[in-house]
Amino acid sequence: MEKLTHVLEAQQFSRKWLEEEFFPLVNEMKKIPKGSGKDILEGKEMISFFYEPSTRTRLSFEVAMRRLGGEVIFSTDHAKEFSSVAKGETIEDTIRILCDNEPDIIVLRTDEEGMAHRAAEFSSVPIINAGDGAGQHPTQALLDLYTVQDEIGRIAGTSIAMAGDLNRGRTVRSLAYLYAKYPDVKIYFVSPEAARMRPDIKNYLKQHGVPFEELHDLRKVAPFVDIIYNTRVQKERGAQMVKYGPPSFCTVNQEVLDLAKKDARVLHPLPHEDEIAPEVDNDPRAAYFRQARNGRFVRMALLKMILS
Amino acid sequence: MEKLTHVLEAQQFSRKWLEEEFFPLVNEMKKIPKGSGKDILEGKEMISFFYEPSTRTRLSFEVAMRRLGGEVIFSTDHAKEFSSVAKGETIEDTIRILCDNEPDIIVLRTDEEGMAHRAAEFSSVPIINAGDGAGQHPTQALLDLYTVQDEIGRIAGTSIAMAGDLNRGRTVRSLAYLYAKYPDVKIYFVSPEAARMRPDIKNYLKQHGVPFEELHDLRKVAPFVDIIYNTRVQKERGAQMVKYGPPSFCTVNQEVLDLAKKDARVLHPLPHEDEIAPEVDNDPRAAYFRQARNGRFVRMALLKMILS
Amino acid sequence: MEKLTHVLEAQQFSRKWLEEEFFPLVNEMKKIPKGSGKDILEGKEMISFFYEPSTRTRLSFEVAMRRLGGEVIFSTDHAKEFSSVAKGETIEDTIRILCDNEPDIIVLRTDEEGMAHRAAEFSSVPIINAGDGAGQHPTQALLDLYTVQDEIGRIAGTSIAMAGDLNRGRTVRSLAYLYAKYPDVKIYFVSPEAARMRPDIKNYLKQHGVPFEELHDLRKVAPFVDIIYNTRVQKERGAQMVKYGPPSFCTVNQEVLDLAKKDARVLHPLPHEDEIAPEVDNDPRAAYFRQARNGRFVRMALLKMILS
Repeated sequence: MEKLTHVLEAQQFSRKWLEEEFFPLVNEMKKIPKGSGKDILEGKEMISFFYEPSTRTRLSFEVAMRRLGGEVIFSTDHAKEFSSVAKGETIEDTIRILCDNEPDIIVLRTDEEGMAHRAAEFSSVPIINAGDGAGQHPTQALLDLYTVQDEIGRIAGTSIAMAGDLNRGRTVRSLAYLYAKYPDVKIYFVSPEAARMRPDIKNYLKQHGVPFEELHDLRKVAPFVDIIYNTRVQKERGAQMVKYGPPSFCTVNQEVLDLAKKDARVLHPLPHEDEIAPEVDNDPRAAYFRQARNGRFVRMALLKMILS
Repeated sequence: MEKLTHVLEAQQFSRKWLEEEFFPLVNEMKKIPKGSGKDILEGKEMISFFYEPSTRTRLSFEVAMRRLGGEVIFSTDHAKEFSSVAKGETIEDTIRILCDNEPDIIVLRTDEEGMAHRAAEFSSVPIINAGDGAGQHPTQALLDLYTVQDEIGRIAGTSIAMAGDLNRGRTVRSLAYLYAKYPDVKIYFVSPEAARMRPDIKNYLKQHGVPFEELHDLRKVAPFVDIIYNTRVQKERGAQMVKYGPPSFCTVNQEVLDLAKKDARVLHPLPHEDEIAPEVDNDPRAAYFRQARNGRFVRMALLKMILS
Repeated sequence: MEKLTHVLEAQQFSRKWLEEEFFPLVNEMKKIPKGSGKDILEGKEMISFFYEPSTRTRLSFEVAMRRLGGEVIFSTDHAKEFSSVAKGETIEDTIRILCDNEPDIIVLRTDEEGMAHRAAEFSSVPIINAGDGAGQHPTQALLDLYTVQDEIGRIAGTSIAMAGDLNRGRTVRSLAYLYAKYPDVKIYFVSPEAARMRPDIKNYLKQHGVPFEELHDLRKVAPFVDIIYNTRVQKERGAQMVKYGPPSFCTVNQEVLDLAKKDARVLHPLPHEDEIAPEVDNDPRAAYFRQARNGRFVRMALLKMILS
């Protein structure tokens, strides 16, 4: 199989790669005791270049790198506001400058869809897209998918409800692309009318023969889905939401848990607000903290694949 | 004696611990030549998580960690403005995410009184409170107290004037708690009427039988106190201050130095403005730069106690 | 020759030092393969203290330090906005606090002309001026000069057109000082009337017998200069510029390239906007990306000189 270079979008990964290479390597990473494995990326160097802060993602990448013995030789999380970027520098020139410093890998967070792809075209070193505006966040999608595999034991044949702001939610978009690679899956898009999934994803699913439905009320599908993947609904959409049902239509609470299957799982990319009620935390089906924890192992696996 | 875990508030330390364990260890840290002692915290990892910037405090902790051979695996100083915190995440969830990354210690600066305590409840690793809003800043208090011990040779039996904005000054509050653990001390709270020490501290002192007085003019007590601990007066309180005396009532200047005892000491948590006149810097009784310097040794001692 | 301590301004370097010590050492740094040379600054510690962000400069210094095996024990790029500085602390007190932490070197970016000099007066460790407001940026000037030497093969006897906002451009000011140390050079200052080089530099050149001319249109000198050093023209000066010619008067584009000598070179401190037209990137005479790349080697050489 071709060696992994850039990580740019969820679509780039095949089911075969996910199952035969990636998931097993993530499992391996999980088993490395703290303090071991420092030789794996010894001498390797990362530049962590975030146009905008994303504390959680930057933390996950930088700790992953250091745990495997690699070095973070430069880190910034407000490159956009302050650096040359603000002075009008193009992504091409920025990448050229970063590459001049000869890192082994660049973790890049930008604020504009497609910038990670443009960066990769010009980069002499591997680029990991850590989120590009309203575009993709492929490492989040990989950890989401790994969590489904890890919690349910399979992805093929499962049904998933993706709830919340599907229009602007980067994570649900990327996850939908990955889900479509598996047979016998079914996707339910649950959102207020004003926050429906965009046509590009729906067309992609149609082309790949993946059945999906759109609805407004999570309670309608809670009884039969394997995965409830909830996301934040942007506050500013509140007014529009009311028109199509109260916020609770997308909320996971005791009522939804009571309806849900006994072996279902609740996922969420975090941070969550009140779209997950406090009582859910204590239910064994709440898998979002385990999901967050998988983030580091997924990123360790990607770094190892690319760099060693 | 019980092993130290969290450092949350000044009250948690006993006089016995301070004298028998802590002060001697700080003295030991002072003697480590630069470049030595790297084995003490080898393999230990710190996350430095500041909701708001405090360059001086973050610098002190991170250098202390690195000098003892430990690693700072993640550092941010604007977690509040930008991260998940801004998206409404609770301190509990934030701490859970940090702990998932398996640091050995978290240095936490928040902007709300009591958050360090809540963090500690949920944390699986030791938390050091590096300031929680108007609450406490216990490592500053420990370095203040250590400086009194180091400069005067004793704490018991000394008198101290705490001057400036006592209402909102975190450092004077924490130091008052520590001072109350020693016999035969006397505290003078010197402030404009609008910036008086809050009742909680005064009640604490009454309960512990610690004599204190409140006044407006530093010159009244300068002749007989051992320690003048001055702090910044917030500019916005200026108007109210005038009513109760000119700003100089809380200023340490040549006039105050002339009144002061020959073996007195002037302390200040720094940075200072004009509440310390420029001429004071050259007086041997000005101990605030030595006090600042003690910050690193105090933090090295705490890290060693907790982590090794 | 005297050992190098502080790097504060371009004038401090002699031609002899540049040619006999500095340029050869930069060449040496260029040849160190990645992963080698870690012993050169092993155990040395840098504090990277930026009052304001300058991602490119901070990146260059921090990577240079790490490549030679040194450690960055503290880094901040918004010290002004947030730290004690904002609370009114003087540069003297800030430097004292930094020195208390016993770094081996401080890289300092401030926002006020002359602050680097004041810092050096009070510092017990070497200071590198990484830009002080409208003052100087000596390491940029050194890398500019090195690039001329490297690209043209000599500095003496060359002619240079410095174009753009010469009034506020820190880099052209510092470079003019260095250029004046060489015989038989000629400088052309090309700018809109509103952005002319300030008298201090022009007087300096007169005193040192360095011939210079001022003009508005780059095309007038393009045919015979060895170096076109272009810089950004601040957008807000646009209106005034129109009065003295369209922006293209200071733009390097195909027209200028067609006029220019076959062995000329185009330099720019980057980031560039449209004062360099897109087609220029592909011309072999465009040396600004190689110039940027030299930044790291120049800083490695300075760090080695000061610290080892």
